Order: sequence, then C-alpha cells, then structure tokens
Amino acid sequence: MSQSNPRRKEDLLLRLGRIEGQIRGISRMVEEDQYCVDILNQISAVRSALSSVGQILLEGHIRGCVTEAIKGDHGDQSIDELLQVIKRYTR
Amino acid sequence: MSQSNPRRKEDLLLRLGRIEGQIRGISRMVEEDQYCVDILNQISAVRSALSSVGQILLEGHIRGCVTEAIKGDHGDQSIDELLQVIKRYTR
Amino acid sequence: MSQSNPRRKEDLLLRLGRIEGQIRGISRMVEEDQYCVDILNQISAVRSALSSVGQILLEGHIRGCVTEAIKGDHGDQSIDELLQVIKRYTR
Amino acid sequence: MSQSNPRRKEDLLLRLGRIEGQIRGISRMVEEDQYCVDILNQISAVRSALSSVGQILLEGHIRGCVTEAIKGDHGDQSIDELLQVIKRYTR
Repeated sequence: MSQSNPRRKEDLLLRLGRIEGQIRGISRMVEEDQYCVDILNQISAVRSALSSVGQILLEGHIRGCVTEAIKGDHGDQSIDELLQVIKRYTR
Repeated sequence: MSQSNPRRKEDLLLRLGRIEGQIRGISRMVEEDQYCVDILNQISAVRSALSSVGQILLEGHIRGCVTEAIKGDHGDQSIDELLQVIKRYTR
Repeated sequence: MSQSNPRRKEDLLLRLGRIEGQIRGISRMVEEDQYCVDILNQISAVRSALSSVGQILLEGHIRGCVTEAIKGDHGDQSIDELLQVIKRYTR
Repeated sequence: MSQSNPRRKEDLLLRLGRIEGQIRGISRMVEEDQYCVDILNQISAVRSALSSVGQILLEGHIRGCVTEAIKGDHGDQSIDELLQVIKRYTR
C-alpha cells in the first residue's frame, strides 16, 4: 500500500521495464559471445538502476509506513524492519 | 568470445532468464501495491543474483582473456581494464 | 547528542578502538611486505567492522533524532538527511 | 613481498596513517556526542579511503604475483585466490 502515489508507481514501472530490457540485452550479449568486459559493464549499469529503484521504494516506505507507525506510537517494529532492509542493502 | 565454454554459457543464460522473471515479478508487486519491504527484499535478491552472474563472467574473463594476454606479454592493458571493472563493482 | 545511551557509547568506543588497532596492524603488514592477499583480507575485515559501527549509529539515529522529528511533525528534513546517509552507504 | 615498490609502500603507509587518524577522530566525535549523521558521513569517508588502499594493493597483486604465476604456468591457484578476494570485496 505504500506506492499509493500514482506518479511514483508509474515511474517505478517504467524503470523496471527498462531494467527488464537491459537484462534481455545482457542475455543477447552472452548468447553472441560478446566481450566479457562489455557484459560486466552492462551488469554494473543494471545494478545501479536497481539501486535507484530500491532508493525510491525506500524513500516512499520511510515517508509512508514508517512515519505513520512512529506517529501512531508503534514505530519500534517498523524501525526494526527498516534496519534489516538497510543492512541487507549495505552489508 | 570469452564464454566459449558452452556449459557456462548455458548456465549464464539460465540465470539471466531467471533474473528477467524476477524483475517481471517485482513489476507485478509494484503494480499490485504490495508491501514495500517485500519488494525491497526481492530487489536485494536480484542484486545478489546479478552479482553471481558478474562473478562467473569475471572468472571466465580472468582465466581466459587476461591469462592469454599475460602469457602473450601484453597483459598491461588487459590488467588496466580488469582493474576498472573491479573498481566499478566494489566502489 | 544521539548517543545519549552510555552503554551504546561505550560499545562504539570499544569497537572503534579495535578498528584503530586493526589499521595499525595493516600498516605493520605493509611495512613488513606481507602477502597482499592477507592484507586485503584484513582490509575486508575492517570494512565489515566499520559497517557494524555505522549500523549501530544509524539505528540510534533513527530511533532517536528521526523518531523525535517525525513525532514533532517536522520529520521531512530529517528523512531527507537519512536518505542521503543511506544512499552514501549503499551507492 | 608484493609491495616491493618502495614508492607504493610509502604511499600506502601514508594513507593508512591518515585512516588511523580518521578513526581516532570518529572516536572523539562519539565521545563528544556529536551529531550521528556527521559521524556516519565520516565513516563513509573512511570506507572510501580503505577501498582505495585495497584497490592499490589489488593492482600490485595482479601486476605482481598473479602475473608471475600465470607466466610460470601455475596461475590457477593464484586466480582462485584472486577471485575469492574480489568476491569478498564485491559481495
């Protein structure tokens, strides 16, 4: 329920559609035995694009769910969960 | 030309196919306004899967191109390029 | 002002003291021309130790400052800042 | 034995000395209860500085040990080890 913002939802779907295309492009590069370094650079690009999607979702989550939970005085569980997410992202 | 190994190529294509499916799954989760934290965890999973693909490509690249270049006494450029790739991955 | 918790403060200082010692150990390894791979592994260990310190500080920050700002209805700036910090950590 | 280059060794020791000072600075910030976000930003800076040290060591290692091992036709073990190091850095 946290992407209630329709503009952000559309933006996210566009980005994910582009990422899907990039993955297909990488498969094609592998299929055609293209130069590894070029493929590796494409993978880096997808990782960055995914990080941006993650960042947008995280922002929405903090401004939405986490903020509401804190205002409703039951923020503790929500913050635990948030810290787990961040930990997974930063390792 | 570095994925001359047909088994590795097949493995990579399978992995990339699975990643493409995961991205589509994430788009569906966004579309259906699923819980952000679940979506973020899926994104983490794709990032890990992409890292594995990168690792396999990197291994093939080092064992193939880089090794040949070094044996042929023109390894310097190949190593420069390799260091750039690693830098991009580790930042 | 966010490490008002004396136990956490002590824990952080202990961890940072240990990290300082590890850095000195790495300098010694470089000085003595020890094997690069061993030095690189030590650097990885310090990076993990630093991430743990960062995670503890982040947790304190979210449970402290950010929570208070949100409760006081001026959470926006605090969340912007938090997102910047996370971005820097996840890149 | 891989930092046989005296200029690189000196550069590494200078960088590590600076990092040690930064860690001491972070301890002081914690001691004085400075603002978490400032401390977190300092930790990011140290992580970047450590990555640079790692990158320099890695370059020396690849140009030195790994290259020699490959030329001596016993590169396989050296490459396995290198891939482990890279994996640890990129996770």
